[in-house]
Amino acid sequence: MKDHVPLNEAHLKTDLTPSSSLSASSASKTKPVKVGNVTIGGPEFAVIAGPCSIESREQFFETATAVKKSGAVLLRGGIWKMRTSHQSFQGLGPEAVGFIREVLDHTGLQLVSEITDPRQVELLDPLVGMYQVGARNMFNYALLKELGQTRKPVLLKRGFSALVDEWIKAAEYITIGGNQNIILCERGIRTFETSTRNTFDLNAVLVAKSRTSFPVVVDPSHAVGIREFVPKLALAAAVAGADGLIVEVHPRPAEALSDGFQALTLEDFRKLSHDLERVLGALDRTMLKPV
Amino acid sequence: MKDHVPLNEAHLKTDLTPSSSLSASSASKTKPVKVGNVTIGGPEFAVIAGPCSIESREQFFETATAVKKSGAVLLRGGIWKMRTSHQSFQGLGPEAVGFIREVLDHTGLQLVSEITDPRQVELLDPLVGMYQVGARNMFNYALLKELGQTRKPVLLKRGFSALVDEWIKAAEYITIGGNQNIILCERGIRTFETSTRNTFDLNAVLVAKSRTSFPVVVDPSHAVGIREFVPKLALAAAVAGADGLIVEVHPRPAEALSDGFQALTLEDFRKLSHDLERVLGALDRTMLKPV
Amino acid sequence: MKDHVPLNEAHLKTDLTPSSSLSASSASKTKPVKVGNVTIGGPEFAVIAGPCSIESREQFFETATAVKKSGAVLLRGGIWKMRTSHQSFQGLGPEAVGFIREVLDHTGLQLVSEITDPRQVELLDPLVGMYQVGARNMFNYALLKELGQTRKPVLLKRGFSALVDEWIKAAEYITIGGNQNIILCERGIRTFETSTRNTFDLNAVLVAKSRTSFPVVVDPSHAVGIREFVPKLALAAAVAGADGLIVEVHPRPAEALSDGFQALTLEDFRKLSHDLERVLGALDRTMLKPV
Amino acid sequence: MKDHVPLNEAHLKTDLTPSSSLSASSASKTKPVKVGNVTIGGPEFAVIAGPCSIESREQFFETATAVKKSGAVLLRGGIWKMRTSHQSFQGLGPEAVGFIREVLDHTGLQLVSEITDPRQVELLDPLVGMYQVGARNMFNYALLKELGQTRKPVLLKRGFSALVDEWIKAAEYITIGGNQNIILCERGIRTFETSTRNTFDLNAVLVAKSRTSFPVVVDPSHAVGIREFVPKLALAAAVAGADGLIVEVHPRPAEALSDGFQALTLEDFRKLSHDLERVLGALDRTMLKPV
Repeated sequence: MKDHVPLNEAHLKTDLTPSSSLSASSASKTKPVKVGNVTIGGPEFAVIAGPCSIESREQFFETATAVKKSGAVLLRGGIWKMRTSHQSFQGLGPEAVGFIREVLDHTGLQLVSEITDPRQVELLDPLVGMYQVGARNMFNYALLKELGQTRKPVLLKRGFSALVDEWIKAAEYITIGGNQNIILCERGIRTFETSTRNTFDLNAVLVAKSRTSFPVVVDPSHAVGIREFVPKLALAAAVAGADGLIVEVHPRPAEALSDGFQALTLEDFRKLSHDLERVLGALDRTMLKPV
Repeated sequence: MKDHVPLNEAHLKTDLTPSSSLSASSASKTKPVKVGNVTIGGPEFAVIAGPCSIESREQFFETATAVKKSGAVLLRGGIWKMRTSHQSFQGLGPEAVGFIREVLDHTGLQLVSEITDPRQVELLDPLVGMYQVGARNMFNYALLKELGQTRKPVLLKRGFSALVDEWIKAAEYITIGGNQNIILCERGIRTFETSTRNTFDLNAVLVAKSRTSFPVVVDPSHAVGIREFVPKLALAAAVAGADGLIVEVHPRPAEALSDGFQALTLEDFRKLSHDLERVLGALDRTMLKPV
Repeated sequence: MKDHVPLNEAHLKTDLTPSSSLSASSASKTKPVKVGNVTIGGPEFAVIAGPCSIESREQFFETATAVKKSGAVLLRGGIWKMRTSHQSFQGLGPEAVGFIREVLDHTGLQLVSEITDPRQVELLDPLVGMYQVGARNMFNYALLKELGQTRKPVLLKRGFSALVDEWIKAAEYITIGGNQNIILCERGIRTFETSTRNTFDLNAVLVAKSRTSFPVVVDPSHAVGIREFVPKLALAAAVAGADGLIVEVHPRPAEALSDGFQALTLEDFRKLSHDLERVLGALDRTMLKPV
Repeated sequence: MKDHVPLNEAHLKTDLTPSSSLSASSASKTKPVKVGNVTIGGPEFAVIAGPCSIESREQFFETATAVKKSGAVLLRGGIWKMRTSHQSFQGLGPEAVGFIREVLDHTGLQLVSEITDPRQVELLDPLVGMYQVGARNMFNYALLKELGQTRKPVLLKRGFSALVDEWIKAAEYITIGGNQNIILCERGIRTFETSTRNTFDLNAVLVAKSRTSFPVVVDPSHAVGIREFVPKLALAAAVAGADGLIVEVHPRPAEALSDGFQALTLEDFRKLSHDLERVLGALDRTMLKPV
């Protein structure tokens, strides 16, 4: 057999002979990001909770008050939804703004909500405490650059097929506009496995934390897509060193207009919060408390 | 646009509309497996540790006594190694048998070692407490059927591209010979991501536990391939409900003949063991103690 | 071993037991799409060629005249580029509009160019014969809906990790606005393999053609990312039944500002065109001729 | 933002900035391999055909005579089958040997059949013209080393998740025993896509041919798993430069004991053979004729 062509460097990605340059950097130190008066990326573990979609005043109010009581420090809730099929529920849109304000005022929580079009900044900027960029839009550089022009924090979800390196470079599209307030969010990646909605990539949380100074949180709801498993992933992320989590909660998951199968009940969330405090305590960390 | 052909069921694997049949089964109850007098799959968390390859009497002795002292209940160590290149270290083979016995006698620990050829049963059967089937051999049904004829327990690693369903069906190739003593081991899967050696699939641990009664352990060393991250994955697996772990430890990783970059030092392992006790305790579990 | 939980339908995605519902539909019939007076999706095979990025008047003019002479019926050329790093060349933007018009007028070819932001419609609509949506924007539904409001054809590239089903549903986001003029483009997917830029998914061309009436073309340049291999993929797509191809050509690839390693030279393209005619002829098809 | 840790080389695997070392080698020249008096890897294109499993004397005889008549130069047929479930048909095993010899004698064709256990060499060596190693066993180094001790050619299928580099290194496990008679076979890889059984990786054929001197053939049957699409992939491989193909054919696919959904009928095969001759002819190649 003749000599082989020298293998290119990309071949270092092999199960057997990883590059010696695959190593953690101990130099990284997370710089906290403030969302209102909530600090993410400091010593305390932050929990963001709420419904996948904001569906009605009643559902949002009930969820918000319950998750605050159980320890959430920020409220999640989708106004526009990204759905594979245009026939699925697309979110309430602007009509929900009125009652959202009411709920925020009542609970004192700030809102984390997804932006899906650069032209939504005008409506969202006065409403949200933090913008969320969904996995499908991580490569939407026009949107990222627009958010670089705002000063609100951005929760940047990893694209479901994005390399950690691409995720970090996507964050840089925001920073070039001058906005350094970025929180990275691992939410599961697409692999060959089909028994769960996505494959939760806990490794990526560790790599992202070692390579950047951005806080890194996880979304265990999308990462597995099966309610019973969500709390276990949340605990795992906490002991592995994530800075927090964002989790879907619904008072009656069976009636949810989107993703009910992965939403925790109010009681599930209360129990998760309790378990988080215990495992964090075992490692001398604490949960951030609602103000 | 004309009507589309009805989509086949495999399309349910989509990030947005997971099948409603994706759910955990609460009916599963793990049946413990005994390796000598060590019970895996009971309420206590079991730690298996040792070198990737058995390299010398001195290295194996030093590692074995240290990991026992720090809480390992079984000893790992490769006699034949599976290497992508035939030019890499292939293991000591039969010449190591003499001193292996000495070390086992001295420590009282049982050995977990990989079998790579059905014709190795004769040599290994009197030596090992548990056979290990590596990721590359999970689909080697001739080997699995041979192990079905023994009565020793088998640690069946998941193939790096095996569906959880295929992993379970591979276990059945062992059970048809009458050997029910199987422990499943998640060790990372191959995905598009290249920043870590493999992608640790914690979801799969949860699915495997819900679908079978086999104990499920994790191998955090191969799952990430970066020393500094190994303890974090081990803690994560513990709080997520795994039955134990198998981890690579070497007294001087820089001198290891295989996979030194992912081996814990003796001190790393001691610290991991301490942290495991704490997080397990927070969830009212304990670590299994060496006899 | 206890009974297993019934496997969910997604498990049908297994190498060994594919669903019997995995089958081609013979009912589909492609509906041609007109770009100016060029018909794509009819009996003839259409070739779109040009540079990755429009870099200068001279480079664009030289490429355009050469590819027309060698058989291209439409001209590609990027005005805004999507780059992983914001420090890479981002395209000339609006300043190129003047000389682009000159080149189009001179050659009589229509332009296919990527849109990366819904707010670019105003500038692009009078300039392009067909919009291109890049792989990173296939899930950018805001952009797709905007294009549904135009009447220009849209070349919709498959996301590099999009299921064929998601690709088709993305096309529907365009059709709901009333724009049925869609051409699907397979350009390689992201897999575990690292020896080529992407994995060319020829299977997906066949599936897409069987499930929809949209014409389907391929982009062999991105699909493999290695110049020498590009013509071979182009021939393969032609005999497998694709409706055409879009290929990157540069007069001096070594000087290209983006993706030069995968650009054909003018001479490579001339030779490819010749070979395409021959293999198409063997199957009683012909290449569409420039007007 | 602080400086990032320098990215490791594996990160070059990114859609946007492929390594400049990703290039084809023009130095490679295929060394033909002889199977009996059939030469694979020379200027002519070789077709291997036959049933997935040998099911009965009648089925094997009918298929063998028909495929020979339509241009096959070697006969495929499985005696032992690798099946995910032990409850699926496992092949006839040794009982088929008698009538297999009859069929081979009658047609004058040599047999290509899969070996699944190193202990099968004794039975298979006098029977086969070429051993086949299946995708699940590409990493079974004990089996590969055993085949290195024989002098019969080996058709080495790529593992469904093997890097091209690992596939080549697996071939070297055969060559170290002194057996250089190796033919590589691409048969589809496992990816996120679920609409076809596997993803046909035509790129890998080109890479393997450029990096080694082994002939490279394709298995379009497993690569897509849908009968109607198999001939299109076969034509694609032929014009892209593969050295041949191995394809499943069954007189009555609906009655096949394994993989009937992807088997060509005798008539499908006859038509494919005709089309292959035409497209090869257009590129000045010919099909190898049965002796």
